[in-house]
Amino acid sequence: MARRNEERRAALLDAAIEVLAAEGARGLTFRAVDQRAAVPAGTASNYFANRDELLTQAGGRVYERLGPGEAVLAAGFDGPRDRARLTELMHDLVARVTAFPTGFLALLELRLESTRRPELREVLTARIRADLEGNLAYHESAGLPGDRSTVLLLYLALNWLVLEQLTLPELLPDQQRHGLVTTLVERLLDAGPQA
Amino acid sequence: MARRNEERRAALLDAAIEVLAAEGARGLTFRAVDQRAAVPAGTASNYFANRDELLTQAGGRVYERLGPGEAVLAAGFDGPRDRARLTELMHDLVARVTAFPTGFLALLELRLESTRRPELREVLTARIRADLEGNLAYHESAGLPGDRSTVLLLYLALNWLVLEQLTLPELLPDQQRHGLVTTLVERLLDAGPQA
Repeated sequence: MARRNEERRAALLDAAIEVLAAEGARGLTFRAVDQRAAVPAGTASNYFANRDELLTQAGGRVYERLGPGEAVLAAGFDGPRDRARLTELMHDLVARVTAFPTGFLALLELRLESTRRPELREVLTARIRADLEGNLAYHESAGLPGDRSTVLLLYLALNWLVLEQLTLPELLPDQQRHGLVTTLVERLLDAGPQA
Repeated sequence: MARRNEERRAALLDAAIEVLAAEGARGLTFRAVDQRAAVPAGTASNYFANRDELLTQAGGRVYERLGPGEAVLAAGFDGPRDRARLTELMHDLVARVTAFPTGFLALLELRLESTRRPELREVLTARIRADLEGNLAYHESAGLPGDRSTVLLLYLALNWLVLEQLTLPELLPDQQRHGLVTTLVERLLDAGPQA
């Protein structure tokens, strides 16, 4: 029963992500989530105490689904830890995030909504900080090239690159976007402290 | 009379920007704009044929207000065109954009809304492309260091840096954000083709 509840909760959060991406934060109501999940009216309100809880848990669910998985994480420890490997990992990362467009767009909606809701901002800051710290720790423990600034600058530039692709895809052609990832890794490493 | 109309139109667009940032794209109605601009109900609908026109012109108005102005543009041609100058210009740029937070947030709302409205996406893409091309041309004509990739990578990373500051300001402390701008310029130039 507990397991069944967990599955139902996850399905409701997945529905909330779709509603956020399609309708914006203002469109996220219990009713809209029930409809999107195709469950009886009133279901979502049995799982989440209020709308804030639904918003914050939807954000957590995006990160859960965006996680690279064991296989991908382990791959970072395979083979040479050089520039080519880091470049490959960054291309994989961009591909993984853009393959779940509603997740990225839902997180953006949550960021914008958090400018109006301090509680949401606090939870979202903690969640994204944990993710970023995880990236920094992984990079270091895998012995990948570059320092903390490398990881942070990759985080900044690649996030906006994904935002371009998902909101205004015609602005930068696919090939140019791909080339920019390679060039970014190249320049950050050539000039970094380990250059 | 024409001048007075232009002023009124600009004031209505400024009100639309504030509504977008505060209420999201879904909250942008003629009535909300009239209220925010403190003008009689029905005024905005005399100036804009429909909601799409209001959305796209609000986006254009953000860029109009974000423009660096003649003095700042001219300054790029003063003194040495070296790394220190580019670093200074990038710090100024971040300061200028973050000083108009509702403008940046309104543009993000428009980007998200454009995933649902192809006409808006087209207009927004053209507007942002013109701005980006302007940046590239300015960089080159001012003889600032770095190539096109330098400008594009600065555009990506600094946009997300501003987004962090305006949506989740506690994620990266001010000082760390400031340091990242300096480090980014440093590394992009040290490794670039003109290094």
